[in-house]
Amino acid sequence: MTPTRVVAFGGGHGLAASLRALRRCVPDLALDITAVVTVGDDGGSSGRLRAQRGGLPPGDLRQALVALAADEPAARRSAGLFQHRFAGDSPHGLDGHAVGNLVLAGLIELLGDPVAALEHAGSMLGAVGRVLPMSCQPVDIEARVRGVDPARPDEVQTLRGQHQVAVTGGRVEALRLTPTAPTACPQAVRAIHEADWLIFGPGSWYTSVLPHLLVPGLAEAIVSCRARRLVTLNLATEQETLGLSLADHLAALRWYLPELSVDLVLADAKAVGDPGPVEGAAESLGARLVLAPVAVADGTPRHDPDALGAALVPVLGADR
Amino acid sequence: MTPTRVVAFGGGHGLAASLRALRRCVPDLALDITAVVTVGDDGGSSGRLRAQRGGLPPGDLRQALVALAADEPAARRSAGLFQHRFAGDSPHGLDGHAVGNLVLAGLIELLGDPVAALEHAGSMLGAVGRVLPMSCQPVDIEARVRGVDPARPDEVQTLRGQHQVAVTGGRVEALRLTPTAPTACPQAVRAIHEADWLIFGPGSWYTSVLPHLLVPGLAEAIVSCRARRLVTLNLATEQETLGLSLADHLAALRWYLPELSVDLVLADAKAVGDPGPVEGAAESLGARLVLAPVAVADGTPRHDPDALGAALVPVLGADR
Repeated sequence: MTPTRVVAFGGGHGLAASLRALRRCVPDLALDITAVVTVGDDGGSSGRLRAQRGGLPPGDLRQALVALAADEPAARRSAGLFQHRFAGDSPHGLDGHAVGNLVLAGLIELLGDPVAALEHAGSMLGAVGRVLPMSCQPVDIEARVRGVDPARPDEVQTLRGQHQVAVTGGRVEALRLTPTAPTACPQAVRAIHEADWLIFGPGSWYTSVLPHLLVPGLAEAIVSCRARRLVTLNLATEQETLGLSLADHLAALRWYLPELSVDLVLADAKAVGDPGPVEGAAESLGARLVLAPVAVADGTPRHDPDALGAALVPVLGADR
Repeated sequence: MTPTRVVAFGGGHGLAASLRALRRCVPDLALDITAVVTVGDDGGSSGRLRAQRGGLPPGDLRQALVALAADEPAARRSAGLFQHRFAGDSPHGLDGHAVGNLVLAGLIELLGDPVAALEHAGSMLGAVGRVLPMSCQPVDIEARVRGVDPARPDEVQTLRGQHQVAVTGGRVEALRLTPTAPTACPQAVRAIHEADWLIFGPGSWYTSVLPHLLVPGLAEAIVSCRARRLVTLNLATEQETLGLSLADHLAALRWYLPELSVDLVLADAKAVGDPGPVEGAAESLGARLVLAPVAVADGTPRHDPDALGAALVPVLGADR
């Protein structure tokens, strides 16, 4: 059976949850998984590596690789190594660096090609899928934000850098990348054109989900490819999306890529509450809303990979 | 056929040459290779990691692992990654660190056991053999050295640290470890007791070869085990052994481990010159001198793995 080719877009924990859920589909479906990952991080270990050594910020790439690591003892141990952080909080030395970030930074330097570096890192982890950067050049995320300072709620400021945007308590009104039109990773463009499904989210909407739509080569491929498109909505509002309803999340996708049509929106019934507004927003993208219990049982706003996987199986397996 | 179990002692480039030569024997002989590696390094990347994060200095362990890496593309690429050094010469940040040193430091922290860490690192490289530290605790090397300052050739000073000893232009008169009696790695002791052959050298005599004899648990195993013993002599005098003839190298082994008997001494005919003194020193250890052309062809004092391997095959393969 030809596998169903799925491309998942995102970064950080949200993308990792999506990838773990896709892996849970594999007993039921043959999947060929590609993750396309944001490269805008400028905080923490990734930010320091990027500032000090150039090259792509590795943290989001590492998280995606680890989410795809083979489920056998040696690969699990290597994945644990990739995630291991050197203790300490000095901004110098090894303090706070995840070993996998250093491995990726070293591989990118050594091979001179992030795609080859990610392919090799994937082989080190026996990854069941492929991880690609959205662009082979790092980008910066900039946002026009209203009310950064709670004392001046109407003032609009420009925040520069993914970290600043992710932690702002203000309301993001406009988002852009620097450079404004980064070159898409060619292998990611090809994967989109060959895909059966594209999956957007969950994740930090402004800093992990929307940036892909701002890369012209990806945006063009996303709207012109023959794949069906699925949006997995978040379970809770994050700091950067304070004041943004789930319907607003969908409207933001449409704002940044007006030609985007979506087939399905997957959301957690409890997180949605009254489905009316989300259903309306989904319809304006051309999508049907599917509600399923996809959160972990303990009430924290995290997707449960098994539950999300169970919700994805009938979607991705339909009418092939 | 039961493989011939070989334990090779050393550190740095000398041990790597010995391991590479042993691998060249494998088409002709079935070998089970264990490297037992010094843990006294306090210079460069290893020294900084040891000083900043504790744990074993990883550089010599890394070199031994890389020398045993599988000869296939993915393992060769991982070995290249382990050897890749981040550029720069600041004593802070990643400058000058080999990626493999960071991987080993991370694994040792993560697993809390250098032997398990080396086993996993070996699996990452598809290593055709095992790498063990001589002790699971780092040690310091101290030497009483005459004529450190050329202006005062008769003055004796104590130099502390492997790096200082390795680069001194004075003459080493006495060597010791701190702590003076480090605990031997138990797995190394077991490997010695199960070995068919022990191989000492080539390598920096004071800082890579003799330290093993100063670890009581190793020394006891070395003299009491049933294995035959081979010494591979150096091709040229290094900085730390200025003024030491090849016969003196053998006498030093006897000085630091008087109960040591040796079966064979392997040396390069050109490097030996008049064989008389070396033959005599070998005989005083109970050994026969075997001369073979084992240097690289370009005249630099480096062992050629193919030539050294060719010289080892008849030795290790004899009368089993």
